[in-house]
Amino acid sequence: MQANDEKPIRALIAAMSEAFAKLDAHAFSIVFHEDADFTNVWGMTAHGRKAIEEFHRPLLEGDGSGPIPSFKHAELKVMDTRIRFLRPDVASVDATWTQTGAVQNGHDMGVRKGLLMLIATKQGDDWGIAVMHNMDLPVTK
Amino acid sequence: MQANDEKPIRALIAAMSEAFAKLDAHAFSIVFHEDADFTNVWGMTAHGRKAIEEFHRPLLEGDGSGPIPSFKHAELKVMDTRIRFLRPDVASVDATWTQTGAVQNGHDMGVRKGLLMLIATKQGDDWGIAVMHNMDLPVTK
Repeated sequence: MQANDEKPIRALIAAMSEAFAKLDAHAFSIVFHEDADFTNVWGMTAHGRKAIEEFHRPLLEGDGSGPIPSFKHAELKVMDTRIRFLRPDVASVDATWTQTGAVQNGHDMGVRKGLLMLIATKQGDDWGIAVMHNMDLPVTK
Repeated sequence: MQANDEKPIRALIAAMSEAFAKLDAHAFSIVFHEDADFTNVWGMTAHGRKAIEEFHRPLLEGDGSGPIPSFKHAELKVMDTRIRFLRPDVASVDATWTQTGAVQNGHDMGVRKGLLMLIATKQGDDWGIAVMHNMDLPVTK
């Protein structure tokens, strides 16, 4: 069962990346369960799919002239995804990422590197993200 | 059931704090399940209770003269613990912390602030940590 369940979990990560590339906050939110919890790299949180969408909209649609980063011209690459099943319907997922081209306060943020930490759960037949945290990692040149 | 299960989960956090205060890497490791996964604020990982113990030993016993921080004279405070049950036997736990007095490369690291992210699971009658990530948060003065 678990090998089969890896596929839909990897599809969640792929759908997130694709939504970021398309700057589509709504599509991004769809991978989350309705009651999901999101925490960003600065410890800011959003509860629920709708709030997660609204949280990400300025990142994807803004111009980065202020403190909220803009990912409009950024490129995000998910490098490595590790899935560990804690229960048949609960998985801990770590995905490392790099991003270039993000803009904050009008300046290019340079190469960013980070770790997405998900708890994916299966509700009925569908896997979705119940909890997601994101963290920055040090960039080694 | 969940209210009763909050107590042993909070006890895990308390036991971790106490082990840090006593500089006891073994006691620290005991809150983890045998096959637990740990990731630190720099994305470094340790798999298994024994490896988690050895990972933390230099932090608790070292002198901080090199790049590995020393918490020997540090004070750790867990500020706020939020528990969310994803299943009756699986909980997502976020705990914010502050630390003062850590030393790295011979220098005081100043005020640190961070977020511990746990997935606690119940095996038989016992709660333990299956997955733990730690991240630094920006310190606002």
